Amino acid sequence: MSQPALHTQRAAERREQILDAASTCFAKDGFHAATIAEISRLAGMSPGHIYHFFENKEAIVSGIVQRVTERWVGLLNPSPTDKDIAETIADRATLGMRERTRADFVGLWLEVLAETARNVSLARAVHAADRQLRDAVIEQIGYLRSMLGIDTGTPHDVIADVVLALYEGLSNRSVSNPDFDVTRLEAVLVATTRTVIEA
Amino acid sequence: MSQPALHTQRAAERREQILDAASTCFAKDGFHAATIAEISRLAGMSPGHIYHFFENKEAIVSGIVQRVTERWVGLLNPSPTDKDIAETIADRATLGMRERTRADFVGLWLEVLAETARNVSLARAVHAADRQLRDAVIEQIGYLRSMLGIDTGTPHDVIADVVLALYEGLSNRSVSNPDFDVTRLEAVLVATTRTVIEA
Repeated sequence: MSQPALHTQRAAERREQILDAASTCFAKDGFHAATIAEISRLAGMSPGHIYHFFENKEAIVSGIVQRVTERWVGLLNPSPTDKDIAETIADRATLGMRERTRADFVGLWLEVLAETARNVSLARAVHAADRQLRDAVIEQIGYLRSMLGIDTGTPHDVIADVVLALYEGLSNRSVSNPDFDVTRLEAVLVATTRTVIEA
Repeated sequence: MSQPALHTQRAAERREQILDAASTCFAKDGFHAATIAEISRLAGMSPGHIYHFFENKEAIVSGIVQRVTERWVGLLNPSPTDKDIAETIADRATLGMRERTRADFVGLWLEVLAETARNVSLARAVHAADRQLRDAVIEQIGYLRSMLGIDTGTPHDVIADVVLALYEGLSNRSVSNPDFDVTRLEAVLVATTRTVIEA
C-alpha cells in the first residue's frame, strides 16, 4: 500500500474508533451528559485528535447516523436475483427485525431521535439519512411490486413509510416490553410486510 | 361539594398542572437538562409544592407515563358493540395514528424511551404501563378475532406486539421524515392492522 493510501486508511480507522466510542457514551449517558473527554478516553486518543475529525458532538452523532444508514442501504442493495420474491421478503424482514432490536443500537437510536426532535442541526443530518434509506426502500418496493405484477396505485413512498414504521417500532417495543422476544414475531412480521408491499 | 372532596379535587388539579409543565420541560430540554426549578416556574407553584406531590424527576416522568397509558386504555375500552368490525378496526387505526404522531407527544415519548433504556427506576414504571396497555390491546384482539371467527393459533400477545410496533413506529417516522404526513398512510394502516389481527 502506498504512503498516502496508508494515511487515508489510518484516518478512516481513527474515525471509526471515535464513532464506536461515542456510540457507547451516547447510549450510556445520553447526548447531553456525554463529553468529548470521555469519548476521547474510550477511543484512546486525545480530544484534539477528535476535534481534528469532528467539529463537535453534533458532528459525531451525524457521523453515527450516516454510518448506520450506509450499512442499511448496503444490506438492502442490490436486489437478489437468484431468490424468489417470498424468500427475498422474508430475508428483508429478518434483517430489519434483527437490525432494529440490536441491544447496542436501540438505546443509541432512541437517544438520537429524542435529540432530533429538538436539535435543528442534528435534525438536518437525520432527515438526510432518512431520505437516503427511504429512497433505497422505495426502490426495493418498486422492484418487488413489479416482480409481483402489482399495480394498485398506492404511492410507493406511503408503503415505505408504513414498512419503516413497523420495523422502527420494534426498537420501541424492545425497550417498553421487558418480555419482548422479536423471534416470536418473525412469521407475523413476514406476512405483514408482504401485505404492506402488496397494498 | 364537601370540603374534603374539594381538597381532593384541588390536589388532583395541581398534580395535572405539574405533569403538564413537566411534559413541556422534558420535551424541550430532555430529561437530564430539565430542572424542578423550571417545572415549578412553568407550573406556577413552589418547588416545595412539587416535592409534596412527587419525590423526584423520575416520579414525575412515571406520572406522565401513567397518565398517557390510562388515556389510551380508556380510549380502547369498552369495545363498541353498535359498529361492525371493519369500522371498529378503522376507528382504532385512526386513533392510534393520531395519538402516536401528536406533536406535543412525540418528542416527550422518545425522550422517555431513550431514558428508559438506561434508567432502572423509570424502566420499572414504563414496563408496568406497557403491560397495562398491552393487556388492553390483547383483550381487543381477542374480541375482534372471536367476532371474526379467527382461530389460527397465533398468540394474541404476538399480534399485540406487532400492532403496537406499527403504531409506535409512526412516532419515529414523524421525527425522521420531515415530509411525513400520517393521513396519507391511513388506508394502508387500516388494511395492515386488519391483516395483523387476522394473522
